[in-house]
Amino acid sequence: MTTQTPPDRQAEAVVADLATAAREASRAVALLTRVEKDAALEAMADALLDDAGAIVAANAEDVARGREEGLTEGLLDRLTLDEARVAACAEALRDLARLPDPVGEVVRGSTLANGLQIRQVRVPMGVVGMIYEARPNVTVDAAGLGLKSGNAVILRGGSSAAATNRAIVATLRRALAAQGLPEDAVNLLDGGGHEAAKALMTARGLVDLVIPRGGAGLIRSVVTESTVPVIETGVGVCHVYVDAAADLAEALAITANAKTHRPSVCNAAETLLVHRAVAAEFLPKAAAELAGAGVTLHADDAARAYAAQAGVAAEALVEGDLDREWLALEMSVAVVDDLDAALAHVREHGTGHTEAIVTEDRAAARRWTSEVDAAAVMVNASTRFTDGGEFGFGAEIGISTQKLHARGPMGLPELTSTKWIVEGDGQIRA
Amino acid sequence: MTTQTPPDRQAEAVVADLATAAREASRAVALLTRVEKDAALEAMADALLDDAGAIVAANAEDVARGREEGLTEGLLDRLTLDEARVAACAEALRDLARLPDPVGEVVRGSTLANGLQIRQVRVPMGVVGMIYEARPNVTVDAAGLGLKSGNAVILRGGSSAAATNRAIVATLRRALAAQGLPEDAVNLLDGGGHEAAKALMTARGLVDLVIPRGGAGLIRSVVTESTVPVIETGVGVCHVYVDAAADLAEALAITANAKTHRPSVCNAAETLLVHRAVAAEFLPKAAAELAGAGVTLHADDAARAYAAQAGVAAEALVEGDLDREWLALEMSVAVVDDLDAALAHVREHGTGHTEAIVTEDRAAARRWTSEVDAAAVMVNASTRFTDGGEFGFGAEIGISTQKLHARGPMGLPELTSTKWIVEGDGQIRA
Repeated sequence: MTTQTPPDRQAEAVVADLATAAREASRAVALLTRVEKDAALEAMADALLDDAGAIVAANAEDVARGREEGLTEGLLDRLTLDEARVAACAEALRDLARLPDPVGEVVRGSTLANGLQIRQVRVPMGVVGMIYEARPNVTVDAAGLGLKSGNAVILRGGSSAAATNRAIVATLRRALAAQGLPEDAVNLLDGGGHEAAKALMTARGLVDLVIPRGGAGLIRSVVTESTVPVIETGVGVCHVYVDAAADLAEALAITANAKTHRPSVCNAAETLLVHRAVAAEFLPKAAAELAGAGVTLHADDAARAYAAQAGVAAEALVEGDLDREWLALEMSVAVVDDLDAALAHVREHGTGHTEAIVTEDRAAARRWTSEVDAAAVMVNASTRFTDGGEFGFGAEIGISTQKLHARGPMGLPELTSTKWIVEGDGQIRA
Repeated sequence: MTTQTPPDRQAEAVVADLATAAREASRAVALLTRVEKDAALEAMADALLDDAGAIVAANAEDVARGREEGLTEGLLDRLTLDEARVAACAEALRDLARLPDPVGEVVRGSTLANGLQIRQVRVPMGVVGMIYEARPNVTVDAAGLGLKSGNAVILRGGSSAAATNRAIVATLRRALAAQGLPEDAVNLLDGGGHEAAKALMTARGLVDLVIPRGGAGLIRSVVTESTVPVIETGVGVCHVYVDAAADLAEALAITANAKTHRPSVCNAAETLLVHRAVAAEFLPKAAAELAGAGVTLHADDAARAYAAQAGVAAEALVEGDLDREWLALEMSVAVVDDLDAALAHVREHGTGHTEAIVTEDRAAARRWTSEVDAAAVMVNASTRFTDGGEFGFGAEIGISTQKLHARGPMGLPELTSTKWIVEGDGQIRA
């Protein structure tokens, strides 16, 4: 259940000041034209390049501290910025400048019988809080996405990237000010520990939306402690189900791609389900291919026996494996009796992210896409395609696994709300 | 801040059982065709008429208890059902049967460069909790809206309508069962006090969405205590601003309509703002018209003086009046120096529901619609038009005053989420 701590008054006061300044700035940012926002994004990109030396130096402090504190090499790599990575962040801002402005888009509208003209128009959310972990490129992305969608942002990065985030945000704010825009459009909530993050999540009325990005623990904490509306992102226990009617060569390619193309991300597959009718033919090949790519299999008894036929020693499945988001070269494998069993398995163990079937059977595909309850349901494609870039959104703030407001990859429109504009010439209700 | 009580294990267990049954039912309801859902709605309407006698008898118990407990006449009227009101509830279900099915609507889609066909399709939320107060017609409306949008519902009505809600839900469940549909598509969370409501709001993973409908206290409680996603509805401190360039005859008609047409609802106007330049001409007429309709004015010094010129004795504004949702024949009145002052006033005192300007000045109208941050911004029209029926939605579950997911009147589509369906022929990521 909820883990409530008494509110920390000092953290609340800090967040209230920050959010009040952000709110004030958000009113100006909301009214900017696309031309003004794109010029600011280009200026922010230029400033990052100008200040790359200072940012890399600040980052080196974080990396050195992280190494002392025993961060893994993987985390240290995610934390590290060199000049090339700073340049990539700048390029991401320029990419945003090339995307259409979501603000002002007319979603729908009509003229009512009484002559009232109504239209529903996209407007910014207002103040958006982002709570995330180590990767400092998120700081740049979130600032850029926020600005382009007309929002002010309050960024709460991980403490391991504190010096880096301070340097980046200082640079971005200077760039905004030089453009004559309010620097409080981009804010860093620096320090203060969990109390500060908690104050951000409960600043109802000052903050319109909080988006957590990071591991399952971070997301759970934000979702349960927040009183500000939240968009939950990311945990993906994604399945590939190889149906009795699968093209097995296709199934093999999709399974290997979904697992090994980039195992550390949420749209990577974590579990392979195989219909009993094709298990004898498919699983030895799949086990050999996956093991050859360095994947450790965690398999049920039937699947282990098939793997053994290919000379692959799979681990025995243990309690909890089927619910694990491995995020690594590890994969759970189970044989299922039929499509119903596969659907039941996904219902029990899926996290509503991406679920793929491989089949040539129309009816099975139709049942899969209708009955599986997930942000993305796929037929004969790798789970790795659930991605804002792949879907053509051009930028992504995260992948929502909740049902409210946004589901699946979130681009700029998902950072907006709408309002109804109603224009009349004196209409009253009879 | 949050008012946390330790969770009540017994209430949690009751809600978990109810929500698990609802969840199971929701899977079947999600797959129903429009034909099946519309037949069920007609059967529910028929059953309400068949059981009208029993429902009215149960309601008489609630009304008698309410009278003993000293409910106001207004609340008793809202609570009371006679056969005509039951028939109106049945008719509302038949109206729902005539509306298009939101489920399955393709929101957008494309074929990607690699040949993947992607489309975003409306799907039900799953299990929707409704927490509301006395009016028993909400029980019927929510059950019908839930079914038509493919959701299972858990209804938490007010204790004052307990017997009525029990009778209505029993009737609706029998009608569902007779149609061969799962009766657990419509569930009543009966008794258990605040602990039970709290358990519903925190049943994350079992309940997909909670919608509170009722007074400000109920809504605040749900919003701060819920860990399930919430759509906030309804508090409306709505303003009519009469600009310097207003057509004053139009302004008079709009003000009177917005205040007096139905004062007890959220889209009624609560505060009148008048530009100083037209106050001398407008306010005496407005005061006379409003007072003549029985409205008590709570006015600042300048407005009181103008009211006095028309022989109307306005009350002096007291602390807090400008933030009051009167929901009655009472209205706050203030004179403002200019459009900027009106915008600042609305920013400070508005609740983001509906804000109207009366003006013939294009620039003022454009600033109003751009700068006011509310679900509905109006030019030269009564605030009373913010309504699902008036907007042509045909049915309304409430009016959202939050920015996430839905803003303004919510119809059937707002009770749905979406999912991405991705169809390929073996695509993998390079």
